[in-house]
Amino acid sequence: MRMYDIIEKKRDGNELSEEEIRFFINGYTNGDIPDYQVSALMMAIYFQDMTEKERATLTMAMVESGDQIDLAAIEGIKVDKHSTGGVGDTTTLVLAPLVASVGAPVAKMSGRGLGHTGGTIDKLEAVSGFHTEISNEEFINLVNENKVSVIGQTGNLTPADKKLYSLRDVTATVNSIPLIASSIMSKKIASGADAIVLDVKTGAGAFMKDLDDAKALAHAMVSIGKQVGRNTMAVISDMSQPLGFAIGNALEVKEAIDTLQGKGPEDLTELCLVLGSQMVVLAEKTNTIEEARKMLEENMANGKALEQFKVFLASQGGDASVVDNPERLPKATYQIDVAADQSGFIDTIVADEIGTAAMMLGAGRATKESEIDLSVGIVLHKKVGDKVEAGETLLTLHANTENVDNVIQLIKENILISDKAVKEPKLIYEMITE
Amino acid sequence: MRMYDIIEKKRDGNELSEEEIRFFINGYTNGDIPDYQVSALMMAIYFQDMTEKERATLTMAMVESGDQIDLAAIEGIKVDKHSTGGVGDTTTLVLAPLVASVGAPVAKMSGRGLGHTGGTIDKLEAVSGFHTEISNEEFINLVNENKVSVIGQTGNLTPADKKLYSLRDVTATVNSIPLIASSIMSKKIASGADAIVLDVKTGAGAFMKDLDDAKALAHAMVSIGKQVGRNTMAVISDMSQPLGFAIGNALEVKEAIDTLQGKGPEDLTELCLVLGSQMVVLAEKTNTIEEARKMLEENMANGKALEQFKVFLASQGGDASVVDNPERLPKATYQIDVAADQSGFIDTIVADEIGTAAMMLGAGRATKESEIDLSVGIVLHKKVGDKVEAGETLLTLHANTENVDNVIQLIKENILISDKAVKEPKLIYEMITE
Repeated sequence: MRMYDIIEKKRDGNELSEEEIRFFINGYTNGDIPDYQVSALMMAIYFQDMTEKERATLTMAMVESGDQIDLAAIEGIKVDKHSTGGVGDTTTLVLAPLVASVGAPVAKMSGRGLGHTGGTIDKLEAVSGFHTEISNEEFINLVNENKVSVIGQTGNLTPADKKLYSLRDVTATVNSIPLIASSIMSKKIASGADAIVLDVKTGAGAFMKDLDDAKALAHAMVSIGKQVGRNTMAVISDMSQPLGFAIGNALEVKEAIDTLQGKGPEDLTELCLVLGSQMVVLAEKTNTIEEARKMLEENMANGKALEQFKVFLASQGGDASVVDNPERLPKATYQIDVAADQSGFIDTIVADEIGTAAMMLGAGRATKESEIDLSVGIVLHKKVGDKVEAGETLLTLHANTENVDNVIQLIKENILISDKAVKEPKLIYEMITE
Repeated sequence: MRMYDIIEKKRDGNELSEEEIRFFINGYTNGDIPDYQVSALMMAIYFQDMTEKERATLTMAMVESGDQIDLAAIEGIKVDKHSTGGVGDTTTLVLAPLVASVGAPVAKMSGRGLGHTGGTIDKLEAVSGFHTEISNEEFINLVNENKVSVIGQTGNLTPADKKLYSLRDVTATVNSIPLIASSIMSKKIASGADAIVLDVKTGAGAFMKDLDDAKALAHAMVSIGKQVGRNTMAVISDMSQPLGFAIGNALEVKEAIDTLQGKGPEDLTELCLVLGSQMVVLAEKTNTIEEARKMLEENMANGKALEQFKVFLASQGGDASVVDNPERLPKATYQIDVAADQSGFIDTIVADEIGTAAMMLGAGRATKESEIDLSVGIVLHKKVGDKVEAGETLLTLHANTENVDNVIQLIKENILISDKAVKEPKLIYEMITE
C-alpha cells in the first residue's frame, strides 16, 4: 500500500477503505508518512469530503493511535458532554454537579486551551486549592463516591489527532466537517465516554458561524457516535451573543453558583436544563426528557445541585466555602461600568469580539505562553432584545488596570443599539439525533 | 504575507496576486516555506485551477528562481520546439537539422530522462563520439556557425520547478493543467527561447490521454507564452499508436536519417513538416506556412537536410559517416520477428504498452540508475489501418537476449487485429494559436 495511491483515490472522489485509512493514520503517527503527503490528503478531503463510513473509520483509527481511558470501574453509563466552544460558555461548570446530583456519573476529562477565557480547568482553579492533578485511580474512585470528578488530560490520548490538527492548522484544512467531526469524536471516545451529548454552537462567537454548517457538523458527529456504538445526540444552540452574563474565569464560577440555585441567566439556565436532560436520559436515570428536566429543576430548587458542587470542589482540594461566599473568589481591582451612548434596544452583541475584549483584559490566553488572570472579565447587564436608556450601564469590566480605553472601544463597536424593538434570539435551533 | 493566507485564498477559489505567487515561489525555493504547506496549495490548485494571469505569473516566477540562458549572441529568432512526450517520438532528431537547413537557428537544450526510450541526448549518443558536454560559449558559436547545436541542461535552471515537480510527483498533484503548463513553459523560457512550437500529444501513449485535456493544456501554454512575450503555438497530434516505425535509440537515429531524405514513415514525416513549417515561420524565414513547408520538402529532396545532419553530428564529435552507413550504428545481436496470429486489419497498437515493451528490452530507463542499451528496441512493420495476413511479420524486436517471451506476450496483448477494415487515425487534431 502506498500513501500516493490513497491521496489520488481521495482526490478523485472515491471512498477510502478501512485498511487505507488505518495505513495512513498509523504511518503518520509513527513518522513513516511525511507531513507533505498528509497535508495534500487533508486538502483533498476538504474538497471531496468523506462518507459516513470513512468518518467513523478515521475516528476509530485516531482513537486507537494512542491510549484509551478505561472507565469500566465506574458504575453506570458514563455520559460526556462536549461544547464546540463559544464566549462565556459556563455550561460544564453547571452541568457537572447538576447531572451528578440526580445520580448520573460525570467523569470529565477537561483542558485549558487558548481562547477568550480559560478552559474548564482554569475556571475551576479560581476556587482556591482546587486541582485536577489526580491519578486515574483516584479519578475513578471520586466518581464512584461523589458521582463527579474532573481530571486534566492524562496519557497519550489520540496522538494521531494531535499531529493531524497541528498540520491542518498551518495548511488551511481545519475547516472541514469530516475532519472536525472525527477529531472531536476521537477525543471523547478515547476519554472513555459511553454516550455523548454535543452542544454545537452557531453564530458569530462560534466556530461554525453558519447554521447549516453547524447542522452538518452535528449530523456528522452523531453519525460517527452511532456507528461506533456510542449513543450520541446534538443540540444546536445560539452563540451569536455571549451565553449568560459572565465572561471570565472567577466570574463564570460565580455565575455557575447562581445557576445551580436556579438564579442564573435565563439562557444559560435553559441550555443547561436542555443538555442536562439529554445526559440524564442517556445515562438511563429516567426514560423521558420531561421527567429528567423535572429532576434537574427540583435539585436546583432544593439545594442538592449546589450541595453537589460543594462536595465536588472539596473532593479535589477546593475551598467549598466560596459557594456560599462568592466574594472569596479572586476579584479584580477595578469595576468599570460601560454605559450606553443612546437609548433603544440591544440589536447585536458580537460574541467573538466581546470575547476578544475579555481576553485583552487577561481572561484568556492569546498564546500557549500567556498567563491567565482568573479575576478579570466582563459581566453583561443587557442582552439582545433588552431595552436600554442612554447612560444606562451595558456591562461592567472587571480589570486590574484602569487603562481599558481600547477594550471599551472594541466593545462599543460590537454592541449595536437599534431604535426599533428587537426580538430575543432563538436559543435552541435544533435537536439532532441521527 | 503568510503562506497560510495564500493557501486559504486559493482554497476558496480566489485569484492570487503576483506578489503572493512570487512570495510562495521564492520562499519555497530558498527553503523558508515547508513542503507540507506547498503540497496543500498544490492540491488546492488542482481543485480550483488558476487564471491565465496566475499561470503566466507562476511561470515567470519559476523562470526567475534560477539561471536563464542568454541566447542574444545568436543571430535571428530562436524558435524552440517541445513535445509532451510519447512513444517512438523521433521529431527532434529530424527537426533540428531540417529547420537549421533553411537557415533558422536551432539552439536546443535537451535531456535524458526516464521512459520508454532515452531522451534526445541518449539517442544522439548512439552516434559514436557525439557528446553534448560543451560550454555555453561553444554552444552559441556552433549555432552561429552551423545553425544547430544540442546541449545538455546546464546551470541552475528553474530550481523552483524542479522542487515543485518532485513534490507534486509524490502528492498526486502532477495532473493539473495550470501546473503542467507553467512547468513546461518555465523550462523553455529559461532556456532562452524567443518563440515556441508545442507538440501536444494525445492518446494512449501520451500524458494527456484525452483530446479535451490536450487542448486545454495547449491553450494554457499558448496563453502563457503570449502573455510573457514569447510567440507560441501548439499542434495537437496523435499518440494513440507509436509515431513512425522505430522505438529505440539507434533505431530512431536510423529512422531520422531516412526521414531527412524524404524516405521516412509517412506520419513522422508529416508531423515534422507541420511542426517544422511553424518553426520556420516563427523564425521569420518566410511569411507563409505553405512556403515554409515547400522549403523543408525541397531540402529533404536535394540532400541539404541530410548534409546539415552530418555537419551537426561532426561539430559535436560524432562520427558523421553513420549517416551514409547506418549499419555502423550500435546493433542488437538478435532480430526477432513477431508475426500476426490472424489475418485482418490492424485496429489498435496501444502506444504506451509497446513503449513498455521497448523499455523491457533495455531501450529506456525504469529508474534514474538504469543503464540504457542504445542498440535495442522495436521496429513496426504495420500501423493502424494496415491489412495483415496471418503469419506476416507485425514488427521486429532488436534484442540482446533471446529470452523475450514476456515482451512478445505484452506486445500481442496490445496489438489488436480486426476482421473489418479500419480507418487510419487522424495524425493532426488541431492547431492552437491562442
